[in-house]
Amino acid sequence: MKYRYVCLLSSLVITGGLSLAQTNQTQVKEDFKVSSTTQPGKQYPQVNSEGRVRTSILAPQAQRVQIDIGAVKYDLVKDEKGVWTGESAPQDEGFHYYQLNIDGASVPDPGSLYFYGASRAGSGIEIPAKDQDFYAVKNVPHGHLREIHYFSKTTNSVRRIYVYTPPDYDKSGKKKYPVLYLQHGMGEDETGWGNQGRTGFIMDNLIAEGKALPFIIVMENGSVNFGGGARPPRPAQGAPGQAPAAAPAQAAGQPGAAGGQGAQRPGAQGPGAGMNFAGQFQSILFDDLIPFIESNFRVMADQKHRALAGLSMGGMQTRSITTANPGKFSYIGMFSGGTMTPADVKDMDTFKKNVKLVFMSFGSKEGGAARLQAAADEWNKTGIKGVTYVSTGTAHEWQTWRRSLYQFAQLLFK
Amino acid sequence: MKYRYVCLLSSLVITGGLSLAQTNQTQVKEDFKVSSTTQPGKQYPQVNSEGRVRTSILAPQAQRVQIDIGAVKYDLVKDEKGVWTGESAPQDEGFHYYQLNIDGASVPDPGSLYFYGASRAGSGIEIPAKDQDFYAVKNVPHGHLREIHYFSKTTNSVRRIYVYTPPDYDKSGKKKYPVLYLQHGMGEDETGWGNQGRTGFIMDNLIAEGKALPFIIVMENGSVNFGGGARPPRPAQGAPGQAPAAAPAQAAGQPGAAGGQGAQRPGAQGPGAGMNFAGQFQSILFDDLIPFIESNFRVMADQKHRALAGLSMGGMQTRSITTANPGKFSYIGMFSGGTMTPADVKDMDTFKKNVKLVFMSFGSKEGGAARLQAAADEWNKTGIKGVTYVSTGTAHEWQTWRRSLYQFAQLLFK
Repeated sequence: MKYRYVCLLSSLVITGGLSLAQTNQTQVKEDFKVSSTTQPGKQYPQVNSEGRVRTSILAPQAQRVQIDIGAVKYDLVKDEKGVWTGESAPQDEGFHYYQLNIDGASVPDPGSLYFYGASRAGSGIEIPAKDQDFYAVKNVPHGHLREIHYFSKTTNSVRRIYVYTPPDYDKSGKKKYPVLYLQHGMGEDETGWGNQGRTGFIMDNLIAEGKALPFIIVMENGSVNFGGGARPPRPAQGAPGQAPAAAPAQAAGQPGAAGGQGAQRPGAQGPGAGMNFAGQFQSILFDDLIPFIESNFRVMADQKHRALAGLSMGGMQTRSITTANPGKFSYIGMFSGGTMTPADVKDMDTFKKNVKLVFMSFGSKEGGAARLQAAADEWNKTGIKGVTYVSTGTAHEWQTWRRSLYQFAQLLFK
Repeated sequence: MKYRYVCLLSSLVITGGLSLAQTNQTQVKEDFKVSSTTQPGKQYPQVNSEGRVRTSILAPQAQRVQIDIGAVKYDLVKDEKGVWTGESAPQDEGFHYYQLNIDGASVPDPGSLYFYGASRAGSGIEIPAKDQDFYAVKNVPHGHLREIHYFSKTTNSVRRIYVYTPPDYDKSGKKKYPVLYLQHGMGEDETGWGNQGRTGFIMDNLIAEGKALPFIIVMENGSVNFGGGARPPRPAQGAPGQAPAAAPAQAAGQPGAAGGQGAQRPGAQGPGAGMNFAGQFQSILFDDLIPFIESNFRVMADQKHRALAGLSMGGMQTRSITTANPGKFSYIGMFSGGTMTPADVKDMDTFKKNVKLVFMSFGSKEGGAARLQAAADEWNKTGIKGVTYVSTGTAHEWQTWRRSLYQFAQLLFK
């Protein structure tokens, strides 16, 4: 067993000085349960009632194994069988991206389900939330989350979108529906709202309780402005839209962001004032996506029955597009994407005639929350309804955005 | 740098005797390209024209890094920056599960997209195939792959299914469609045919070329008989059907099968003569799924317009269910699931009146291929059409099953 001590020692020497690891020697509550985002049949990751994430992995020859969550790395401890086990500090309720670090390699936890975000497909963990009932899987009528491919002239490629159709859609004959176009954040893609966002379950439950009207939700990939391009979904070599953009910084297989919140968090001004938040995505939206949806689904194809919302980068895109195109959308939502005010609008006369609602939200742990009410007040002065929402105890993460959608959806098309 | 040599040495001492690693010092063709199953923006994994898989990962403190594919582990080599790079021997064309091994830990490759199979969500790689055109993403009308949740009385839980509706479904008014129920293999789930199976693209292309009639395809989770249960899809704590079954052998976060083919390969008699291949899945199919589909989609709800097929375990389930229920299905498909003959049927009179086609296939690298024709001959003698297909140069893997579906679909409901 001598090699273990030698390697452990050298490992400590190498990494000790740079370590960000925390240890949790104290009072870890031993009521861990297998997480809802753990793969079926796997025993780890687990979460306890404090919101700590514990995982475990066999790595007999490893010198150091860590769980990396919320931009902090926590050391796991090795037992005599070579199994490393350990846990994080308590995390906010809701969903978080995370990863493991094995002797310097950042990899997904083989026990977790995988989600696309933080510029990579990788591990995610669900911390049970007090209000989890609103996105729970219930025995109510369920809508369909449809994966669809369509041809975009803007990108000259076949693109993947997701479309949520409400539970009554297939049986309602000639009935037409309003449409919400709903965008993800930076480093995420068109799968985000349907997977970690739990959009289908939020809507199914709201509709079952009579709290929201049934409407269609359309989710595209808005990362086209930033080199993200379309994620090849079920790809084939040589097929249209299949060439992944090279990203030299990621050449060693490292995700652009360690599994935390950092990469997606816009600063006070958003990541890069001067970045084009409408750009190619606006062309896709206006020239390709809306026409495709309006000719392939039974939708009310007018401005009164069209909404645009997004989280973070998607919120900034929403602001850019709606303020520059006052005749396109009636309902506007920005979730953790900053604020918008009448000063952002080019043609206020047209905007006032058309826009019914500007909804803005943040997590209470985000700085932007403090600026919401003043912005809403400005809208209310103009006669356009300004509504704000602050998600208690959450940061720039999906629990904030699930709750924002839950609030926003109840205000739409009424 | 002393620690490296110490650890490398001890690593070799420990693992040297047990190593399955191969080295590829010779003639690796340097025409590697980023794979279609590589994550967008990532540079690895790559595949060359020989079918070798090369990957690369930063792991500065690791002692040994391997790529584990096709039940063989290949050593990667470390450079001065701590980046490990290396490649496998040539692989068969088509799709393969694989994983990385870092100092004894089996983990997904952080550069690849992830797929559910081999009893885990993990890495998959696409080796370009000569015939890849039939499942390529093309600018043709696309059907919808719908993720749907429905309540099963049999399992007393909300279950996830996928339903492919053909391109014309939403615009064809009152037109009704035949239905194929299509099952995955052991260690896989209801996502397999839609993801790695590329069912939607195979059907879209066949329909666009007029080679197949449009029909609906329904994909459920058939692992219920083996403790696999329903994979919690977009799970919520406390929701129905959310309790993952404990699997002690996987307690350390290891997948049940290393990323090869072994775990799913049935023996000559299938994995366990005496296992119940109908069982609870048959109850779900007859009591819950077929009634749900027939009351929620525009389908021709009779035996003449209903088909059942599956791969491997799904093929064995197909044999068990169709031979015991001769009045339920008209078209039967077994892909790498063994053979069936008239001797398997309990009530041959009813069977002969109802069944139009028994289709059986294998990859040419599977032993079962040799037994196909004799079984088909027996069907043809009874007046029921027996059709066989052998996929050239492939084993018990998805390229065999994609090709089988492509062949089978052209024979259905005609």
